[in-house]
Parts: sequence; structure tokens; C-alpha cells
Amino acid sequence: MAERTDIAIIGSGPAGMSAAITATARGRSIMLFGSTAVSEKLSKAHQINNYPGFYGKSGEEIAAAFNAHLGAMDISVTQGKVGSIYSMGDYFSMAVDSDVYEASTVILASGVSFGRPLPGEDEHLGRGVSYCATCDGMLYRGRKAAVLAYAPEEEREADFLASIGVKVDYIPVYKDEPVLQNEMNIICGAQPESIEGEGKVEKLVLKDGTELEEDVVFILRSSIAPDKIISGLELDGNHVKVDRGMRTNIPGFFAAGDITGTPYQYVKAAGEGNVAALSAVSYIDGLSRK
Amino acid sequence: MAERTDIAIIGSGPAGMSAAITATARGRSIMLFGSTAVSEKLSKAHQINNYPGFYGKSGEEIAAAFNAHLGAMDISVTQGKVGSIYSMGDYFSMAVDSDVYEASTVILASGVSFGRPLPGEDEHLGRGVSYCATCDGMLYRGRKAAVLAYAPEEEREADFLASIGVKVDYIPVYKDEPVLQNEMNIICGAQPESIEGEGKVEKLVLKDGTELEEDVVFILRSSIAPDKIISGLELDGNHVKVDRGMRTNIPGFFAAGDITGTPYQYVKAAGEGNVAALSAVSYIDGLSRK
Repeated sequence: MAERTDIAIIGSGPAGMSAAITATARGRSIMLFGSTAVSEKLSKAHQINNYPGFYGKSGEEIAAAFNAHLGAMDISVTQGKVGSIYSMGDYFSMAVDSDVYEASTVILASGVSFGRPLPGEDEHLGRGVSYCATCDGMLYRGRKAAVLAYAPEEEREADFLASIGVKVDYIPVYKDEPVLQNEMNIICGAQPESIEGEGKVEKLVLKDGTELEEDVVFILRSSIAPDKIISGLELDGNHVKVDRGMRTNIPGFFAAGDITGTPYQYVKAAGEGNVAALSAVSYIDGLSRK
Repeated sequence: MAERTDIAIIGSGPAGMSAAITATARGRSIMLFGSTAVSEKLSKAHQINNYPGFYGKSGEEIAAAFNAHLGAMDISVTQGKVGSIYSMGDYFSMAVDSDVYEASTVILASGVSFGRPLPGEDEHLGRGVSYCATCDGMLYRGRKAAVLAYAPEEEREADFLASIGVKVDYIPVYKDEPVLQNEMNIICGAQPESIEGEGKVEKLVLKDGTELEEDVVFILRSSIAPDKIISGLELDGNHVKVDRGMRTNIPGFFAAGDITGTPYQYVKAAGEGNVAALSAVSYIDGLSRK
């Protein structure tokens, strides 16, 4: 287990990166969790004309400038998916893949979550529905798992499950041809309909009517609905409710970027990351005075 | 008298400029009022490390990038000082120097106002006079700084300086007893007279004749009375009260940047300008539907 860090930042898009830069400039220790150095969404944006200082640049060029900025400040991104976060009073504990980290404060900057939960998803959360294969996979060795993967980067999660002896039905909910290392049952072109079971998951139903018997369904979306990440987090519709200092209703827990609401704009996200970082620094100063 | 413009933007710092860029990208007509192409405060900032995408740049270099961005979008700055603004029901009328302009909406991004400068203040701006301890403090580790604080909320700025190893002379230009966490030299009951030095700041002179040797003078004035700009504008302390969409209590009247409150940071201001512009565009869409 790592030493307790001052500020854990979840998400490496413009908001998370901006928070990391400001927190580092203020001399605070940080952990920046993300799937790549800068979010894929940014790299793939065609052109961005309203991020002041950059005109007529592609998302890729702006992402390169952001990466250079992180590099110049020796900020690295810890690859990994944050499963859930627990408030421990004056600090937070979080599961990231198979590791556990501690931080005095958290800034949630994981972007907008994708869509509505599947029928049966909320009811079975923790009873056969999981958002993190590397966290919960060991519980299902020798048993049957469906992996609903919303991006090719989830393939390594499925490979991990297969490698430890889970029998995997892999359902790629994306266009690219899946490339998997280990043996599993790949079901292309399918869409999930619902998750069913009495008390615990028993099957995954597909839109074409196919019923797959499963012990667990891993739903691997790029980001998790925010109220599933930490218990008791107050939302405003589908977004995290924040004040102008980017404080949520949970002391020490901040949010920034698309996850706090529209407009979904890079410079708005970057500005919020900056504010969240400074609010976190203030909060930590307050803790140390107690 | 000019034709009525969609959005009048008061102030050409990062917030106003960002608002202008976003509004223009959205196809709206704008007027951007300012004293120079980009605010002097920005041009004279020593170094800005937490505007994502720019690392290790001087304020001047960032200002140049902002100007290039405005230029690429054919956005020009109308030189002039906005005196007062009148709400005329579904539009605003404003006196700028000796001209009168009309706009459907207004974005107030005029920054925090600095009252009358001290003798020596303008000359040394960027050469030992700074308005932002958190921005420039790191440059003065191990050196001497005077902090002229016009409100108790500036105490945390002074604490920040002391915490990073700046030797602080703290001069509270307010009535309350200062409450500081870190060790510094507190000079109560003093009033500043002038700032002196050859080429760069060398000393701060007090009204009682005391001369303090300093490497830098941080002048931390609280903001103005923006309610003098338009009648009935609701404030929150010395700042304009806004919601998360940068709306004030006056329909069609928005605010962004330092004038809406701390932190006084470039990327926060730029983010708010973007949000204000999109809220103004929405508001205009609503008007045209009536």
C-alpha cells in the first residue's frame, strides 16, 4: 500500500490534468489516475478552436501540449481504473485495479458517464454486477462471467479474467475487431438487454433474446456513474452537484469537468480542475490546523 | 451609435477574451471592450505554470498566444472604458468613453479593480510588484516580500508565502486583528506610502516614514464595487454573485473571471468566460423565440 497522498485525482482529461498541474505547482503530492496520459476523447477531437491560446489545433496537438506540460512538471499518470472509494473520516481509501490507495482528498474528474444503467444493473450491484474485473475477478475463478466491454482497452481486463480461470463470454459493445490473447467466447454484434436473477445475477439477456447463464456480469464502461463511485454523493440529475469551489456534499471530495454538468468544454473543464485543486489545498490546510 | 450587438464583453483579460472566442465560434456578434488587446496584468505576470498547455511561459508569451488566437478569429478589441450600463428591458445600453453602445447581453469580465495605484506601483508592475501571491510566490523563496493586504481573506495568501519559505512583512490595511498560521513579521496600523527602487522593487515606504527593504511587494486589494457599474447587481461580498452558468441576478447580464471571486487564476477565468458566453448565447436564443 502506498503512502497517503494529499490529493487523488480520478481522470486524466483536461479537468484532471489541470487539477494535477495546479496541485503540483502548490507543492502538494498527487496521484493522477487515468487510462492514458490524456483522455482518448481529447486526442480524438477533430479540432478545437475555443481553448484560448490554441487556435486551429487538432485534439491531438492540444493533447500533446498537455502531455508536455505534465512532463515538464514530472507529473505521471497512474494507469488503472478506480473501482470504488470509501470515506474513512479524514481520508479516503480507494481500490484501483488490485491495489489500494489512500488520499486526504479526492478530485473526481472522470468525465460524463455513459448512458442509463441496464435494467437489473443497479439491483445486482455487488451481487454479481461489478465494474472492475481486476478487483473482483478472483472471486469468480472456475465460474462464468460476461464481460460487457464498451471500449477496446477493456480487452486486457477480459484477458486477465480468462488467465485466472474465469469462463468468459466477451461482448464487445464497440466497432473495432476485438483482439484477445486468451481463450474465451466472443459474441460480436450483440447488445445487452437486461441482467436477471433472484437475489444474485443468474443471466444476461441480449437484445436478440439470447439468454446467457452467468455468475457475474462485468460492465466495463470508460467511466462509472458517479454515485456508484462513492456512497452518499449528491447528484444534480446525472451530474455531481458542486458549489462554485467545486466542493461536493462530502467534505474533502471535489469534482471537476464534464461530470459536474454542461457545457462539455475543454477550457471550462480545465478551469474547474484548477479551482478544485485550490479548494483541495485549502481543505488540507484546514485539516493540518486541527 | 453602433448597431446593437449580441454580446458586449467588458474586459479583455483571460475571461473576456475566452468569452469573445467562444461567442464568435458560435456565430454571435460581439464587442470586446478593453484597454489593451490583452490585459496588462497578464502581460506583466512573471511566469504562469498552471495554464494547461503552456508551461514555463511568461505572461507576455501567453498574452501573445491569446492575441494570435483573437487575430486568427478576426476579433478586435475596442479601446475604451465602460462607465456605466443601463438595463433597457430586453437590451443594455452602455456609455464607453464618449460613445454609447447597445447589446442584447453583457458579460462583465473587468477583473478586480485596483483603486488608485500607489506611487511606484505601475512602474514596478512585473518588476517586483505583483497582485497574486499564489502565482508568483515561488519566485521569491528565501527572499523578502511585503504583503499589502486589504482584506482578511488575503491572510491565507500570506500564509502560503510563509509556508514556502518567503520572508513576509505582512501589512494588514484593514481593521480586524490578523490571524495568521505561519511565522511572519506583522506590521499593524501601517499605511503604505510608496514603492521605490531602480529598475526593480527595492523598498516599500510607509506613511510613518519607515522604509522596508523588499524584493517584492504583493498588493492584494479586494475587489471593487461592481454594483456601481449597473444598478441592482447582486453582490457576494465584494464580488459579483453568479450561479454555475455565470448568470447574475439581472437577466441577460453575466459575469466571469476575477470579478466573480477567488481564486484569481487565468484558467479559471478562461473557463468562466467560455461558460458565460454559452449562457449568453442560450439567453439570446430564448429572446428570439419570444
